[in-house]
Amino acid sequence: MGSAAGGGFPQWNCNCRNCKSSRDGTLTGKPRTQTQVAICKDDCAWFLLNASPDLRMQIEATPVLHPRVLHPGNHGRNSPIGAVLLTSADIDQIAGLLSLRELQPFRVYCTSSIRRILQEDNSVFAMLNRVPDQVSWTEINCDGSFCLQAERGAGINCSVLSLGNHFPVYVSRDRSAALKPEEALLGVIAESSSGKQLAYMPAVPAVDEPLLRRLQETDLLLFDGTFWSDDELIREQGRGSTAREMGHIPISGAVGSLRLLAGLRRPRKVFVHVNNTNPLLDESGPEYREVRAAGWEIAEDGWSFDL
Amino acid sequence: MGSAAGGGFPQWNCNCRNCKSSRDGTLTGKPRTQTQVAICKDDCAWFLLNASPDLRMQIEATPVLHPRVLHPGNHGRNSPIGAVLLTSADIDQIAGLLSLRELQPFRVYCTSSIRRILQEDNSVFAMLNRVPDQVSWTEINCDGSFCLQAERGAGINCSVLSLGNHFPVYVSRDRSAALKPEEALLGVIAESSSGKQLAYMPAVPAVDEPLLRRLQETDLLLFDGTFWSDDELIREQGRGSTAREMGHIPISGAVGSLRLLAGLRRPRKVFVHVNNTNPLLDESGPEYREVRAAGWEIAEDGWSFDL
Repeated sequence: MGSAAGGGFPQWNCNCRNCKSSRDGTLTGKPRTQTQVAICKDDCAWFLLNASPDLRMQIEATPVLHPRVLHPGNHGRNSPIGAVLLTSADIDQIAGLLSLRELQPFRVYCTSSIRRILQEDNSVFAMLNRVPDQVSWTEINCDGSFCLQAERGAGINCSVLSLGNHFPVYVSRDRSAALKPEEALLGVIAESSSGKQLAYMPAVPAVDEPLLRRLQETDLLLFDGTFWSDDELIREQGRGSTAREMGHIPISGAVGSLRLLAGLRRPRKVFVHVNNTNPLLDESGPEYREVRAAGWEIAEDGWSFDL
Repeated sequence: MGSAAGGGFPQWNCNCRNCKSSRDGTLTGKPRTQTQVAICKDDCAWFLLNASPDLRMQIEATPVLHPRVLHPGNHGRNSPIGAVLLTSADIDQIAGLLSLRELQPFRVYCTSSIRRILQEDNSVFAMLNRVPDQVSWTEINCDGSFCLQAERGAGINCSVLSLGNHFPVYVSRDRSAALKPEEALLGVIAESSSGKQLAYMPAVPAVDEPLLRRLQETDLLLFDGTFWSDDELIREQGRGSTAREMGHIPISGAVGSLRLLAGLRRPRKVFVHVNNTNPLLDESGPEYREVRAAGWEIAEDGWSFDL
C-alpha cells in the first residue's frame, strides 16, 4: 500500500533533488506514501503490518480494504481489517492507528513494551478503547510464534524476531530504562496457506549470520531500503544522524545490505521504506541500475504479491 | 485544504449511503479530506489553523506550501509554514503535527490546557522538540488577541474566544479536572491586511447572542457543518452520541445553525468540517438545496478565499 520511509516522498519540508524533481514532474520515478503492508489468507480478514500516517488514503486506494455490503446489525459500519501487527513504536509505524478510531473493533498485536508506550505514555490512543468491545490488545513475545487472528476469517501463522534494541527518540530515557530493549524492534515472518514465507523487515539495524540463515528460508523479502549511504541524511539536511544511528543498515558500501544479502538465492528481494533522499528513487540513475542488476526490486505503492 | 469532519469522507469503516455512493462513483458530490485551513498575508509565512491527520497529502496538494527554492545554508530543507494555531485537542485537529516532525522549526500557538495534553500526556509529540531550535510553543489566552507570527514574514492579528468546555474523550477525567475548561475549544477570528475578518469555527456546541453579534462583524465565516441532525450518528452506527453531546450544533431544526444564523447578513457563510454521514454531501438532495437557498456554501477541498 505504501513504500516510503517516514515523511513519505516527497517530504513536506524537503526540497532535495528527489523531492524537487518529483514535484516539478522531471523525476523518472514515482511519489510514494509511507510504508504500509496488508496481508490476508482468505479475503475475509485482512491484517495490517504496522499503521502508517497515510493509512486513511492508503485504505481508500485499496478496494479490498473497504467496508463490505451492509448486513443487518452492523448499521453500515464495518471493515475487513481485523488486526494490526506493530513491529516498532516509530511514528511512521503507529500514527495510522489514530485513523482507525471510529469505534471499530479490531485487534492490535505488539510487544508489551510497545503497548506500554502507546497506552501508558500517549493518551490519544485511548480513542481506540472508548467502548468495551472496541480494540483488544494482544501482547506477543519478541522471539516467538503466534497466529495473527481476527474475530472472523483465517488466521496467519507468524513468527517474530528481535532486530534491535533502541526505542524511538520520543520515548524518554526513564521510560526506555523500564522497558525490555529486545522488544523495541521486530522483524516478521508470515506463512501463506501453501507454506511460503514472507519476511517483513522495514527497519534493520544490522545483518548477522542467524538473520541471514533465517532469510534464506523465505520466499519474499520486504527489506529495509531506507538509505543508500550511511551519511545521506546529514548531507541533505546539514545535521542529524547516520543511517546506522537511526537503526537502518545502508544499502551501499562494503558492509551494506546489497553486499551482505547478495548470497540469498531463494527469496524475491524487494526494498521497502525508501527515504525521500535515497538516490534509488531516480530510476534513471546508476544506483537504481545497480540494485536492479543485483536482482532487487524497489517497492512502489499499490504493489501486491501472491504467495 | 480539507473540509470533512474527523474520519474524512469517505470514512475507512463506513458503508453508509454517502460513503458507499462516493466509492462506487454514483454520488453527486465530492470526497473530502479532514478539515484543514492555511492562511497568509504575504505568502512568505503561512499559518495552519489546526493540523489534520491528512496534512501530508494536503500540503502536497497545495503548491504554495511546498518548500521554496534552495538558498545557501538550509540544505534543501525548509517550509513556508511558519506556525500552527490549535483550536482544540481533538485528534482531527492535532494529529497532523506528527507529519511536521522532520526537525523543521515552526511555532505552535495553543492554550495552556491544550499544550499540557500534548506535551505532558503524549510523548509522541516530543518528536517536535528533538533539537533546541525546532518547535517553539506559545501559549494563548482563550479570550484574547495576539499576532500569529512566524520567524519571517507578516504576522496576522487574531482574536480567539472560548466556544466550549469539554476536552476530547481521550483526555482522562483526572487530567480534565486539572485543566481550565474554558480552554478546551476556541473559535478564531483572523484579520486581513485590509481589516476584513475571517471567523474559523469548525466546532461550535451552541450559538448565543454574544457570539451572534461577534459573527455579524465578520466577512467570511467558516462554520461547523458537521451534522445535519442531532441523532444522525446514532442512526448510522447504531450507537454513539448526539451531535450536541459531541460538541456540534446540528444544521437543521428549530434551534439548528441554519435558523440561528439566518439573520447574519454581512459574512459569506461556508459550512466546513462536514461529517461523512451528513446528507449535505449529496448535491442532488433536498438538504443541499435548502442550505444553498439559504445563502450558505458547503466547503470543498482546495477552496481559497481572498479577504
